[in-house]
Amino acid sequence: MDHPAFFAQVEHSHVAFDEPLTLECGVTLPRFTVAYRTYGRLNAARSNAVLVCHALTGDQYVAEDHPITGKPGWWDTVVGPGRPVDTDRFFVICANVLGGCMGSTGPRSPRQDGLNPWGDDGLEPWGTDFPPVTMRDMVSAQKRLVDHLGIARLFAVIGGSMGGMQALQWAASYPDAVFAAIPVACAAYHSAQNIAFHEVGRQAIFADPDWQGGRYWRSGRVPARGLAVARMCAHITYVSEQALTRKFGRRLQEAPKDSREAIDLFGEMFEVESYLRHQGSTFVQRFDANSYLTITRAMDYFDLAADYDGDLVAAFRNTRTRFLLVSFTSDWLFPTAESRDIARALNRAGANVSFVEIPTDKGHDAFLLDEPDFHRTLAGFLAGCAVHARLEP
Amino acid sequence: MDHPAFFAQVEHSHVAFDEPLTLECGVTLPRFTVAYRTYGRLNAARSNAVLVCHALTGDQYVAEDHPITGKPGWWDTVVGPGRPVDTDRFFVICANVLGGCMGSTGPRSPRQDGLNPWGDDGLEPWGTDFPPVTMRDMVSAQKRLVDHLGIARLFAVIGGSMGGMQALQWAASYPDAVFAAIPVACAAYHSAQNIAFHEVGRQAIFADPDWQGGRYWRSGRVPARGLAVARMCAHITYVSEQALTRKFGRRLQEAPKDSREAIDLFGEMFEVESYLRHQGSTFVQRFDANSYLTITRAMDYFDLAADYDGDLVAAFRNTRTRFLLVSFTSDWLFPTAESRDIARALNRAGANVSFVEIPTDKGHDAFLLDEPDFHRTLAGFLAGCAVHARLEP
Repeated sequence: MDHPAFFAQVEHSHVAFDEPLTLECGVTLPRFTVAYRTYGRLNAARSNAVLVCHALTGDQYVAEDHPITGKPGWWDTVVGPGRPVDTDRFFVICANVLGGCMGSTGPRSPRQDGLNPWGDDGLEPWGTDFPPVTMRDMVSAQKRLVDHLGIARLFAVIGGSMGGMQALQWAASYPDAVFAAIPVACAAYHSAQNIAFHEVGRQAIFADPDWQGGRYWRSGRVPARGLAVARMCAHITYVSEQALTRKFGRRLQEAPKDSREAIDLFGEMFEVESYLRHQGSTFVQRFDANSYLTITRAMDYFDLAADYDGDLVAAFRNTRTRFLLVSFTSDWLFPTAESRDIARALNRAGANVSFVEIPTDKGHDAFLLDEPDFHRTLAGFLAGCAVHARLEP
Repeated sequence: MDHPAFFAQVEHSHVAFDEPLTLECGVTLPRFTVAYRTYGRLNAARSNAVLVCHALTGDQYVAEDHPITGKPGWWDTVVGPGRPVDTDRFFVICANVLGGCMGSTGPRSPRQDGLNPWGDDGLEPWGTDFPPVTMRDMVSAQKRLVDHLGIARLFAVIGGSMGGMQALQWAASYPDAVFAAIPVACAAYHSAQNIAFHEVGRQAIFADPDWQGGRYWRSGRVPARGLAVARMCAHITYVSEQALTRKFGRRLQEAPKDSREAIDLFGEMFEVESYLRHQGSTFVQRFDANSYLTITRAMDYFDLAADYDGDLVAAFRNTRTRFLLVSFTSDWLFPTAESRDIARALNRAGANVSFVEIPTDKGHDAFLLDEPDFHRTLAGFLAGCAVHARLEP
């Protein structure tokens, strides 16, 4: 059985590890692949590496055109020559997370457990049998990459949203390997409301008959409609009510004539509807539904304090890592209060911590957008850390 | 062609109108039905009638067990003997909205336009060909009912959420027929974010292959999964983040063993997921997907000021109706600011208006729940209005 449409992917730069990786769930991956990109040059002292961690639907293409969509890198306002994370100075690494669909081992990868009841050519993917992964597992895989690159200590780990969860996990799991950690627009645990929104997305995927129990590669039909609905729902949580009002308000546009699916009064639809549909339909061209299920689950399970008997302070006890926490006023997915909780725990742990709340009406997505206040804060913090780390200019 | 499963509905008390009703979209219904319930007794002066308007998924069974679900009336904490809307004193009317699925004319009703290409026994329902309706249309149908009952002036019109939109529309369309209006947890227009959430629900329904272009009665399979996802998504917006955290937090429970659809680490799922799934699955037993499409659209189109050249003040100019506006602090679907905008417009129109924001962490659904502050406010306002209206005690 061959699955050309499913496997005909872009070739991603990667490293394959033959040393097994035991996941939190108890399953051991005998081997695994981490796809990654780097920008800038590692200095002779190997002391200028910055690891960027991506969010739920992000990937390793931080600061270059995306090989599938052709769009600019998702953080090219932040990472690049002369940007806050200056690739003229820093060696920037970004890896696709474990469980992802851009080259790192995940549900789309050929399964390795010897259980391949549906074929024997070795091409059957894991699908939903891919073992559940956690933030800690994702970070473990990244640590292997960082070791592989010969970097004993990262100058900084930075990420927004789920990327921020990874930055926290890095600081907790490998305190001596992280000089500075910059968790942005995140929390130390996923809230009930956030779990609920993820569950709506998962149910939308399950409800799509093209999901086919997760084995959609066999038919060549992917659960595009369900995944699009999941994306639409999630997308609302990424923006603020003010931003939606400012961008679209109640403006109408002509409804598509070729669809029975427009319930309209006068052949019109709201612009915000059209925008959401576009968000949904473009997303499915670049993302795998089983990865969406796996990664949302990893976020839901994230609760850093739980690994330390419910005490977040213990996660950071005696840490020497310098922290910058950033939140955005209109972010209702990861509200400022959740960053403040982290800041309090870090303070109680005696950590060196800065906490900045950026005023913006753009909501959670502000971390991806042109927010000069955020960018100045980030550049300033990195400059200060570089002095403390005695990093050559 | 017979559709027993689709038409085998509970018999609802109703009145059939043979006078045509012309809708805002231009379509004329040659006849229509309004299903309704009443509680208490109309006094001799016909001056003690209170019209209760229901929300998106509500119906006319306000204060009695529901004929399908067997559950108590949706507002039996507010309406009943000795309750804030005291049925020992008031004659309470509640009608299923036009476009609904509990006996009033809607997508489930046999079509009347002579276009019945799929059968000739007169049983083909409107389905998605049911003309789009607006709040004004819903209120026009209710006005016919109120006229039919021989009531020239309602003592009060009260409703929460979409019911509050109707209360506003009543006061604007028929100022002399409304002594008091009590719009609760609502707004004078539907916001971009609210439209966006509705659109996610609609897309979830469209994505369900059992939707079958809206003609699901032919196969006997209803788009239950899509409608359930729509309900789950909407339900999150009805509660506050605090309420979800208080009720469920991150507590886990055993995952169902019979499902491939649980992506879990240790055979567990979050309680909040189980709760949402339950909300979705019970909803589809009592609600029609095409009605959901029709009514969400009516809410999206609601923009009272738009009928008055964008001037909400003009909607209420010279009104003698007394208003009580109620909002809830943790309601993020219809935030207090939107009620405050209505209060400001009413003030500028010289109306008699009280505005109370009830402190609660229960979110939008607070209007349906045990909120003593709200109930005291409501009872007090009605008592005051009764004095002004010279209503016999």
